[in-house]
Amino acid sequence: MFTSKPIGFVSSPYKQTSEIPKGLGAKHNAEGALKILAEFELGLTDIEGFSHLIVLWEFDRADGFQLLGTPPSDNRQHGVFATRSPRRPNPIGLTIVELLGREGAVLRVRGVDMLDETPILDIKPYLSNIPAENLRRGWLGEAEARGRQGT
Amino acid sequence: MFTSKPIGFVSSPYKQTSEIPKGLGAKHNAEGALKILAEFELGLTDIEGFSHLIVLWEFDRADGFQLLGTPPSDNRQHGVFATRSPRRPNPIGLTIVELLGREGAVLRVRGVDMLDETPILDIKPYLSNIPAENLRRGWLGEAEARGRQGT
Repeated sequence: MFTSKPIGFVSSPYKQTSEIPKGLGAKHNAEGALKILAEFELGLTDIEGFSHLIVLWEFDRADGFQLLGTPPSDNRQHGVFATRSPRRPNPIGLTIVELLGREGAVLRVRGVDMLDETPILDIKPYLSNIPAENLRRGWLGEAEARGRQGT
Repeated sequence: MFTSKPIGFVSSPYKQTSEIPKGLGAKHNAEGALKILAEFELGLTDIEGFSHLIVLWEFDRADGFQLLGTPPSDNRQHGVFATRSPRRPNPIGLTIVELLGREGAVLRVRGVDMLDETPILDIKPYLSNIPAENLRRGWLGEAEARGRQGT
């Protein structure tokens, strides 16, 4: 067993799961903030230079886990590790946000898809891409293709 | 406080930290495996369709944390949240690997940079890129530029 504790909390316009855009073509342009605890502020040194950050956070309001589930972007079941479902064995979420600005221990960001007051576990710089021509997106690419065909 | 437990373990050629390529221009092409515990195998359903996976794992051999540190890719100090240092408040690592194949609960992958027997916390599909023209890489871009100039 490993333990983790919040390094801060998300400030998000979403108070309930139902408000978060989901499914195929969902856009995450909501602005919010990462409010880092004062004791960890020194760890943000030089973060302003990065345009995008990887945020790891706890699905603190998820209820247990489910190894197979039907995501909002498809009408078929998939394994939890092939989806972004909150109901994971270790309920850790990952969001890539655009860093808009920093005021002390508060990072203003675009692209939040977490609930308000979600505990933040870690922040990492987003460094590199997989070239698009090397990327395959499995069932999600197939679901998108079916959606375009209206099936 | 949140708790997490391994969903499996990494099989890696690296037995010691000193063997892992580090610093500017380090290439991570090592092949290895993600050995998922039998109880979670059902969660891998459909994962074969994805070319790349995000692996979250525990830096189980890291020793405490340091809010400021000098990464192997630079000779200047940066905040821990602007680096990939193992010495983080919550020692969770993130690696993007290429999925080469699956045999039951074992995923053969390329791009491991973890130590052998590292505990795996989660696997997520890698879905999208930030367009290269929108990406700024902060101190790392600057360190690379200084390296090219030999300074």
